[in-house]
Amino acid sequence: MSFDHRRYMDEKRLWVNAELETRLASSGTPPVELHDAMRYAILGGGKRLRAVICLACADAAGGAPGVAAGPALALELLHGYTLIHDDLPCMDDDDIRRGLPTVHVKYGQAAAVLAGDALQALAFEWAAAGAAPAPHTPTAIVTELAQAAGSLGVVGGQVMDLAAEQEQPSAEAVARIHRLKTAMLFRCAARMGAIAAGAGDEILAGLTQYGENVGLAFQIADDVLNASSTAQQIGKPAGSDAERSKTTAVAVYGLDGARQRADDLVSAAVDALVGLPGPVDPLHAIAHYITSRTH
Amino acid sequence: MSFDHRRYMDEKRLWVNAELETRLASSGTPPVELHDAMRYAILGGGKRLRAVICLACADAAGGAPGVAAGPALALELLHGYTLIHDDLPCMDDDDIRRGLPTVHVKYGQAAAVLAGDALQALAFEWAAAGAAPAPHTPTAIVTELAQAAGSLGVVGGQVMDLAAEQEQPSAEAVARIHRLKTAMLFRCAARMGAIAAGAGDEILAGLTQYGENVGLAFQIADDVLNASSTAQQIGKPAGSDAERSKTTAVAVYGLDGARQRADDLVSAAVDALVGLPGPVDPLHAIAHYITSRTH
Repeated sequence: MSFDHRRYMDEKRLWVNAELETRLASSGTPPVELHDAMRYAILGGGKRLRAVICLACADAAGGAPGVAAGPALALELLHGYTLIHDDLPCMDDDDIRRGLPTVHVKYGQAAAVLAGDALQALAFEWAAAGAAPAPHTPTAIVTELAQAAGSLGVVGGQVMDLAAEQEQPSAEAVARIHRLKTAMLFRCAARMGAIAAGAGDEILAGLTQYGENVGLAFQIADDVLNASSTAQQIGKPAGSDAERSKTTAVAVYGLDGARQRADDLVSAAVDALVGLPGPVDPLHAIAHYITSRTH
Repeated sequence: MSFDHRRYMDEKRLWVNAELETRLASSGTPPVELHDAMRYAILGGGKRLRAVICLACADAAGGAPGVAAGPALALELLHGYTLIHDDLPCMDDDDIRRGLPTVHVKYGQAAAVLAGDALQALAFEWAAAGAAPAPHTPTAIVTELAQAAGSLGVVGGQVMDLAAEQEQPSAEAVARIHRLKTAMLFRCAARMGAIAAGAGDEILAGLTQYGENVGLAFQIADDVLNASSTAQQIGKPAGSDAERSKTTAVAVYGLDGARQRADDLVSAAVDALVGLPGPVDPLHAIAHYITSRTH
């Protein structure tokens, strides 16, 4: 029997959701509105792709079960905080996400900034919970997350994305923004999983390639979905990227060209999965899922 | 010859400033405006008290020279990021800090939010640079910083501070807000220094007491200064706390009562410095400096 892609993704997503639900400070913990805003932002759904990639890469690298739990969950906190801040009026000014009011609409701007800030701190607390084993330094996982999250990672990508709204989109600008804004965190997910499993250089290099290519494919898929779907399908206003002259893959390559690029990137991701001691079917499943979003 | 307090503080502050200047991404690193905003926020002066406490606690705990450099500098990044976000229009809405335009006034709100976000990430990268030695877990330093920075630390304190502007200030509210908003990070400074030095339980407990009490005294001194100084002396509008009905020690205890409390806290901090293997004169100097700010 072939590997059940959908079932694998569903099971992992449910596990991530249950862990987040349990580990986040409970509703009613003072300051109450802060912890409510944090739970609202994180527990409101999502594909949990970054966490699943981290867990699956740890498995593929031969890690013991659960070895990447802390880093995997930390990725969802980190990603969730960036969404809160990206939605703020001074940034993308989005009122709706996943069909619900964004955090600043529901709790106010100050609470949204502070909930994001607290979630970033918590992400590092969770990432640090398991020290990395040899051949890595014990704090290698925290360093990975910090670099992906910082001014040469996610935050730098958001700055470039905002600045690019003023300009004619170029292929180079799209590649640069996609890499920093999205692919760095997918790359980090793969690397943290591998590092938590104690992977050596060769395995780490292969999974790094996987993570980066899957991340680039994911952002293109996101651009394609935004350009081609209805608001109901994606839970936020459709076509909003074009309206704002966002620097997207669709603006540069067209819909078909963008789909082709996503396919090529997924192929490159899968090609990097060689010589791994653990199961790779889940990593194929994730890549497959990402391509399916563009068609 | 007695210990030269002023010279010690000056030398350490200059060392911290030089390290920050060198280690931060240079002006011109893309995205340029982001890195400029980060440098502007961090290199614009400041007493560097948190860093100096961290370094001095590592020395007092018998640590080798330089053992707490990463955590000490990380504290200045963390503190600097909280100032940027606290100054935002949706929070305290301050236009001037240390006599200069605040980050959002100079670079815009989006850049201010993002520069703060990137500085928090960088703080964790720097804190992780040196793993903690036994008897602590290697990632203990990151955990300390994350807890002090999070929803039950600095961010939680800022939420309570904003909420308290609506209420009649009480002694309990002042104590709770001061503890989370300010003392947690001073406590963290002392503990990270002790942990970096490999301190055992007893030494860690004493330095924890020192850090927390010095932090509480520092916030009271800040309240006293705000209530009693001219704008020129403190580099921001004087009396702004009272105008906004901030929950301050002066509002609850009056100027003389607040000064007395600061003195008592400094005495308690100094009393906790027993049985330390390294020099304690610098820790006395810091406590002395903090009291001198209230008179």
